[in-house]
Amino acid sequence: MFESAELGHRLSKAEYDEIDPQLRTALLNAQFELLEKKGFATVILINGIDGAGRGETVNLLNEWMDPRHIEVHAFDRPTEEERERPFLWRFWRALPPKGKIGILFGNWYSEPIGDRAFGRIKKARLDQRLSEFNRFEAMLAAEGVLLVKFWFHLSRGGQKTRLKALEANPDTRWRVREADWLFYEEYDRYREVAEHVLRRTSTGIAPWVIVDGSDPDYRAVHVGRTLLDGMQRKLDALDKGYRTRLTAPLLPAQVDQRNLLNALVLNQPMDKKTYEKQLEKLQGRLALAVRSDAFARRSLVLVFEGMDAAGKGGAIRRVTQALDTRQYVVIPIAAPSDEERAQPYLWRFWRRLPREGKVAIFDRSWYGRVLVERVEGFCSEADWMRAYAEINDFEDQLVSAGAIVLKFWLSVSGDEQLQRFKDREAEAFKRYKITAEDWRNREKWPAYEPAVCDMIDRTSTENAGWTLVEADNKYFARVKILATLVEKLEAALGK
Amino acid sequence: MFESAELGHRLSKAEYDEIDPQLRTALLNAQFELLEKKGFATVILINGIDGAGRGETVNLLNEWMDPRHIEVHAFDRPTEEERERPFLWRFWRALPPKGKIGILFGNWYSEPIGDRAFGRIKKARLDQRLSEFNRFEAMLAAEGVLLVKFWFHLSRGGQKTRLKALEANPDTRWRVREADWLFYEEYDRYREVAEHVLRRTSTGIAPWVIVDGSDPDYRAVHVGRTLLDGMQRKLDALDKGYRTRLTAPLLPAQVDQRNLLNALVLNQPMDKKTYEKQLEKLQGRLALAVRSDAFARRSLVLVFEGMDAAGKGGAIRRVTQALDTRQYVVIPIAAPSDEERAQPYLWRFWRRLPREGKVAIFDRSWYGRVLVERVEGFCSEADWMRAYAEINDFEDQLVSAGAIVLKFWLSVSGDEQLQRFKDREAEAFKRYKITAEDWRNREKWPAYEPAVCDMIDRTSTENAGWTLVEADNKYFARVKILATLVEKLEAALGK
Repeated sequence: MFESAELGHRLSKAEYDEIDPQLRTALLNAQFELLEKKGFATVILINGIDGAGRGETVNLLNEWMDPRHIEVHAFDRPTEEERERPFLWRFWRALPPKGKIGILFGNWYSEPIGDRAFGRIKKARLDQRLSEFNRFEAMLAAEGVLLVKFWFHLSRGGQKTRLKALEANPDTRWRVREADWLFYEEYDRYREVAEHVLRRTSTGIAPWVIVDGSDPDYRAVHVGRTLLDGMQRKLDALDKGYRTRLTAPLLPAQVDQRNLLNALVLNQPMDKKTYEKQLEKLQGRLALAVRSDAFARRSLVLVFEGMDAAGKGGAIRRVTQALDTRQYVVIPIAAPSDEERAQPYLWRFWRRLPREGKVAIFDRSWYGRVLVERVEGFCSEADWMRAYAEINDFEDQLVSAGAIVLKFWLSVSGDEQLQRFKDREAEAFKRYKITAEDWRNREKWPAYEPAVCDMIDRTSTENAGWTLVEADNKYFARVKILATLVEKLEAALGK
Repeated sequence: MFESAELGHRLSKAEYDEIDPQLRTALLNAQFELLEKKGFATVILINGIDGAGRGETVNLLNEWMDPRHIEVHAFDRPTEEERERPFLWRFWRALPPKGKIGILFGNWYSEPIGDRAFGRIKKARLDQRLSEFNRFEAMLAAEGVLLVKFWFHLSRGGQKTRLKALEANPDTRWRVREADWLFYEEYDRYREVAEHVLRRTSTGIAPWVIVDGSDPDYRAVHVGRTLLDGMQRKLDALDKGYRTRLTAPLLPAQVDQRNLLNALVLNQPMDKKTYEKQLEKLQGRLALAVRSDAFARRSLVLVFEGMDAAGKGGAIRRVTQALDTRQYVVIPIAAPSDEERAQPYLWRFWRRLPREGKVAIFDRSWYGRVLVERVEGFCSEADWMRAYAEINDFEDQLVSAGAIVLKFWLSVSGDEQLQRFKDREAEAFKRYKITAEDWRNREKWPAYEPAVCDMIDRTSTENAGWTLVEADNKYFARVKILATLVEKLEAALGK
């Protein structure tokens, strides 16, 4: 979930200075339009990692907008008054009325995340509370509240850099407490719990927005734009007389040019000889792993997604070469059949789930919902927004049932793709692989790119992570896929 | 939740014979319209108590409609094939395609309810699973599936009568297995778990329909009509081109004339002398209970709802007479203030929750949402349908935080109400108590009656049950309220 937020997003001073005055004006206008129309309340949740800029962001929002109509509430330990009421009581008291903006800094999420990270409650108890929160937030949304949930993130390295920098400067040394280093020690545990919480509570109607906290300017613009989008959408809906509860949810606004895909160096070196040697070794290990006793009680689900001509088919063949033909099935996913169209969209995948000891390889998959269906408008925004949580639920269930789920996204550069298209057209036996549709999709790539980034951010979970594969060099791509597969498989089987 | 289902609903042979042919025809027509339009799939869940007529109902539905387009699936222990996949796999496989009807007899609910009733899993684990089911069903609904969830109920006494009757007849004796009596022993535990499950999974989009299983004819018509309503609503929505997911959910159809309110004998005897003696005794016990050390760590929330002039005010005074004025507050609920209107509807109640050791008495309450707002159309059907679950969540949170929640519905007969209205108009000092609004509400009573019954069925929970008070005789009503209050309070405080 934190992939995009660990890319090291940055805005230059010049970029920020250009954006800042426009954004302030727009936010202030939206705030006053809201105040005048009183159509809904805006609730902003501020959560995340220490030092990722939560406090600074709250100050900034107060600076950008009119602070008289923003209510900021910070929640620490509950008072005696509060402890004598139900857990949510103090948050109810802090809800802003229609027309106003409420910023809840430390809110219903803080205590359960801390309790779980430090082992004070079990996972089942955590999930029980998260489901209370989901119901509470669904109620708020149905009552017309605009709920914007920000999670401020810093990578482990980013956290360390920050603490070291503060300590190195005599003027800021006092800001680093012992507790900060203790917390740093627990970073991995906290991150794991946070990821689970974000996934479970990122619903179609109230998704989390994860903010890279490392650069103050980037962070500020990301938050400001997201909030602005959310308010404007709901204000538009008011004007048009829609029931505001039906306004579409938020997706993070693009701020800088950096994203998960363009951060990849697609042309990675690998020569044929190295490739062949590696391939043989990895295929051997894969064959051993799937024939082990441990695997007889597990199953393997592989998902391959990627641009056209990125080399999915070739990579899949390098995997299947290591497997017994009775043990695996490759499932190419194209347009659904009539029978499949008559069912919920996940049905066609449920029917193909492998038994224990078996491998199912999906050449394209359920992610079509948030890729082609989103980009081509085959389903509504509300449909693909809810799909992230539905897909996470689906994969959760697979993993709970003992499946090992691995997902690969294969990326090729535009030039390399063009070359491959031309090669295919030139070679008679490959000509069937290239159609007008492929050329059309190539044109559409700019629309696919944000969809792919959203997909990876929202469905790369602790249980079923995405592996991004730089695929301009087929050798490199195949070896990376096999190596990842073998490593994760062996780890899952306890080898 | 089982209040209405324990009234002993009955249909006479003549009534049934009149309804049966019309209902069959209508169901068959709906089935063929569905088959032709293929707009959605219908999934019927059949759950409930042994012997409450689940099997018979499935047979009947197959008889009434065309069985070629109904798929019945019965789920027992999972097969090896099934155990090797995620829990929901076998249910996904059984989903009917659009245009068809699927009956799932024993489904995702069966195993967790059994596991919890027989102590094999903890409550937190049960809740974790229920939240999976809620998400699964929300997905089905969003995908356009018509989901009709039937729970067939028999009271403990009804269950015993049935088993005894089977045993008494030599021809049917073989049908009673030892397991049936064992199950009967566990009835209370099973019922408690079932109630929790039904409450937690009765959502606005997929509410449970609880069917009184004791009379086969009543049961059949209840099921048939509910199913018919659901299908017709969704078919209408298709015709009008609404997105079918937005069609309103189901409420149980009224079948016989019997309901929770008219089953009450409103004029209960009690003379003034008995009343005064009882009153004094009960008020004394109440005063002791709320002054006890045990109560210092609890709080008390009393809800009074009822028809106009049913005697809420008088009853409340008899309660407060026993309390120290610093310890309680009476909160009369009328139309919300501007400030309250700018918040989610429950906000005005959250702000008035008592601290530990205190008593909050609500004269009318959050139930306005499903009473006056429903009947007068102040909110949409979707709004009041979701309110049952939201209210249950709210009261759950109160109870988890240590509050004792007691709810009283005061019923008076039409004649008695008329008399009281006239008395009020005649007496100068009571004249303020009667307005044109009261006369108008009296006219509207027929519309309120089903709303009250639905409210009691859907919000009378193990944590916060409703007490129905026969209030034609004020003495009786006040004593019943005080006696119930004292008894439940003492029990909750462990006296």
